[in-house]
Parts: sequence; structure tokens; C-alpha cells
Amino acid sequence: MILYNDQFVSSEEAHVSINDRGYYFGDGVYEVFRIYNGVLFEKDAHMARLARSAQAVRINFPCSLAELEERLDRLVALNGINEGTLYMQLTRGEAKRAHPFPEDATPVLMGYCTEAVRPLIAMRDGITAVTLADIRWLRCDIKSLNLLPNVLAKQEALDLGSAEAILHRNGIVTECSASNIMIVKNGVLYTHPANNYILHGITREVILKLAETEGVKVKLQAFTVEDLYDADEVFICGTTVEITPVISIDNQPVGTKWDKLELNDSNDPTHTPISQPGMITRTLQNALSRYIGVDA
Amino acid sequence: MILYNDQFVSSEEAHVSINDRGYYFGDGVYEVFRIYNGVLFEKDAHMARLARSAQAVRINFPCSLAELEERLDRLVALNGINEGTLYMQLTRGEAKRAHPFPEDATPVLMGYCTEAVRPLIAMRDGITAVTLADIRWLRCDIKSLNLLPNVLAKQEALDLGSAEAILHRNGIVTECSASNIMIVKNGVLYTHPANNYILHGITREVILKLAETEGVKVKLQAFTVEDLYDADEVFICGTTVEITPVISIDNQPVGTKWDKLELNDSNDPTHTPISQPGMITRTLQNALSRYIGVDA
Repeated sequence: MILYNDQFVSSEEAHVSINDRGYYFGDGVYEVFRIYNGVLFEKDAHMARLARSAQAVRINFPCSLAELEERLDRLVALNGINEGTLYMQLTRGEAKRAHPFPEDATPVLMGYCTEAVRPLIAMRDGITAVTLADIRWLRCDIKSLNLLPNVLAKQEALDLGSAEAILHRNGIVTECSASNIMIVKNGVLYTHPANNYILHGITREVILKLAETEGVKVKLQAFTVEDLYDADEVFICGTTVEITPVISIDNQPVGTKWDKLELNDSNDPTHTPISQPGMITRTLQNALSRYIGVDA
Repeated sequence: MILYNDQFVSSEEAHVSINDRGYYFGDGVYEVFRIYNGVLFEKDAHMARLARSAQAVRINFPCSLAELEERLDRLVALNGINEGTLYMQLTRGEAKRAHPFPEDATPVLMGYCTEAVRPLIAMRDGITAVTLADIRWLRCDIKSLNLLPNVLAKQEALDLGSAEAILHRNGIVTECSASNIMIVKNGVLYTHPANNYILHGITREVILKLAETEGVKVKLQAFTVEDLYDADEVFICGTTVEITPVISIDNQPVGTKWDKLELNDSNDPTHTPISQPGMITRTLQNALSRYIGVDA
């Protein structure tokens, strides 16, 4: 069952109009919630961000936030999801195609749940990433449906054999195609300040609080691609990736270089530098797991 | 009747899936054709631009371009549109929400025609405009469905009492929320070069050719907001606005300042500087009307 406006229907029953401004303008906002133990994780923070995004693009809610929350909770319960994600979006509504806000359109709400397990292997072993130019608009703090540049960056990363794209504007690292990014250098945790260049990640905020509790020094300070290459530890974070270490960037290992010795077919030794997730990353992962209330 | 993939159906029959990537990512491209005398104007140029946009975001056509052209011609004929517009879009197709390109999705084609008359009054009298920061992504040459910044700019212009937003990046004028822009200074026509910062307008291209025929000197050169304020003539151009003069920018009259003398209730004279569309704008408007094959 999906949520479509104030109804719970099958996804086949919810037919989007060709005149939905979400379909031809991407004129809408969205949220992705994590479900742990059948409950929406950090629900208040997600609701607040949704309200902020909607206000920034001046889309009114078709119901009160409290009513919306009830519908989302009911969606999770109806689908019996214990561990998964809830996706929801709100568009400006149906209207004849024209750029100005329509006078009388009713915003269209849609949401659904999906079962999803935590990415434990990636969290343990880490992923590889590549750096790409950040070509997105200048209001990345609005969680809007205009995600084509994110899609293109993600696909380009995959085509290059990596799992994620680390974006930078003229050499300043912002975030990734679908996650925030943090680095550790000399024991200090750095991440881009929450301004118009990045999405204000909920997991990012949780991690910053946990870092404080764990005694990790934090600097909300942008860093360069060079800083990234030079970092002791790098990880991405987000609602679904949680804290996932990055162990290679642009084909160079991150942080401590472990030397992997192998023998080839002729029994010649080959040395391959490798990287492993770092100590502070591990500390924060453990803290996040405890905070979530699940085992790491 | 609308076109939905390879079918001609009523708009009620064409139900978009909640899993259409156009709906949740704006993952698609589009075109707007002008219909004059029952025929798609500059059809080849629009088809070529559509192919270019689709290729840039790596969406494959569900049919050959020749077949698509046939469907579009048939759409116009079926609806008996003599003067109007044809809107069409192509999304990457239906798939479970995830950023990477889906392996097996079939692109979704949708198109419809609308009756529309030429904006003769705006073409004659001109419009007012305001300058706003261009906050769009860095591939404005791709005619994608990610149009939220354009929507927000257009609405902001309207809220400020103007008809259009003239966008600039750090003072360099790019284009408008839904049209290109040209200025005339000392008899020379200036417009932003066709790079990644602007949409490569079909009407823009036609005008540049007509300017040559009419003996108007053209410079494909970016200009600043200051140049705009200082211009002798300013006009916007596009498929539906054709050539529409801009007579006021940020509440200042454009070009030749005509002095409008009025008497207030106390019979005191008040002087109001006004602007009228300029000579080169008129010349190009007439040339475009002849090119289109309709009366100005």
C-alpha cells in the first residue's frame, strides 16, 4: 500500500496526472526516512527539514504536519516494515503547464515504504569513490525533486568503477551525489558547513553530536580535493548509507597505506597499497549504532 | 488526445506511474514546438536539439527519430491545431527509486498540443523585467525537466510586478527564466554565446540568421547587467514569446527615454520617462513574422 494524498491505495491505483508539476518541472520536495525496529528514525528532524524545503519553494502542505506524521506512521504500520526506508514527496499539484505558481492547484502527496537492510558490508569494508565537478544549482540545501545532476554524477562514478561521486566546486569539496562527506585529519573531523551548497543531512547532524560526546574535535569547515587526498580518514554519511568509510579516491588509497603483498603467476612479488577504515570512523560508527539502538 | 508512448489516448487514460523517474528525479528531457498554420515550426531544429539533450543525459529514444516525428505530426493533425504549441517530454522510464540508471527501463514518451495565439500585445508594447541571480545548474544547454529554479525565478519576477526574470551569474547576463535575451547597443546586436550557461534557443538561432540578412551586425558575446541597463534596445526571444521587447528593467526604462507629461489632480505637471521598443527590434520582429509566414 502506498500513500497518495489522504488515501492508502495500491501503487497501481495511484495514477499520477501528466499535469502534475512534479512530472514536468520537478516542482516538488521530498524526504527519505529510515525505519529501524518499525519506527521512523529521527522523525522530528526529517519533518522539520521537509517543512523547511517546502517553505523555501513555497509549496503549502495539503494537511497539518501532525496529520502528515500520522499518515506516515500509518504507512509504516500498514506495510509492516520493520527495517527499511520511507520515501515521500510533495509536488505543487496539477495545473496546465506554465512556469508561474498556479492559483488553485492542490499539492500532491505521495509516499511508500520499502524493506531495506543496513549496508553492513560497505560499512565494514568501505567503498571507493571518485571526485567530480559539482554542477548542481545553488540551493542544494533544498531537498527538491530536481535530481538529474545527482543521477548523472552517481552513474559517472559507477561507470568509473566506483560506488560514489565526491563533488567539488572549483576544488572545494561539497558533498556526494546522494550523501554528505566528512574527513579526519590529525584527529579533527571536518565537514562542509550547512549552507546553500550542501544538503543539511540529518545523519550528518547526528554524527556531529555523537562526535562531541565521543570527544572528537569537529570543524565545520570546507576542505579541498587536495585535503581529501591527504586525509587520514574519509567517510560518507546519510540516511541509508549511515557511516560508510571511503578507502580509495580517484584510485588512490585513503589514509594509512597498508602494503598488500601478493605473488603473481611467475611468483614475482607485487606490492599494492591498500587502505582500511580508520579509528575515528569506527568510533563514530559504533556510536551511531548505539544511538540507533541496533547492533553494529 | 495526447501521445503516450506509441498510443493516442485521452489525458485521463494516460496515467503516469509513481515509479516514473521523471516524477521523482526530473530525469528526462523535453521540447516545446510552435505550431503555425497547422505545421510544426522549425521541426528539424527542435528534433536535433531533443536528440542532443537526450544524448547528453543518455536517455535512448523508444523509437526512431523519424517515427517520433510522425507521431508528433499525427498528434497535431488529430487535435486539429492550427495555431498553438506542442509539448513533449521523454523520461528515463519506470524503475524502483535509485540514482543509477536502471538496467531495463523503457523511456516514457508523452506529448500534447494546446491552442495558443501569438502574444501580439506584448510584442507590440513590450514587457517589464527584473534582474535576478542565475542559480541554475551548469548544464543549462540541456533542456531537462529540472526546472524548479526557472519556476522560482519566474514567480519572483511576477511577485515584483514584472513579466520576466533576466538571470545573471555574478553580473554576467545569461538568459531569462523561459527565454533567451538580446540587447542592441550602437547598432550591434549582442547575445550570450551558446555554451553550457544558456539554452540554445531555436528562435535565438533564427533571429541571428535574420539579423545577418537584415544587415544587423551581431556579436555572440556575453554582456553585464550594467550593459543591459545601458542598452539602446532589449528583447527576449523564444518559441512562444517570439521577439518581445523589454521596455523596463528593474523599474528603469530601457533605451530612448521618452518623456510622458501628465497633469495630476492639482494640475501640476509630472514627467515620467518611458521607453518604446526600438528600431532594430521592430526590424527583426517583421523579419521573423515574414519568416514564419504569418502577418505581424
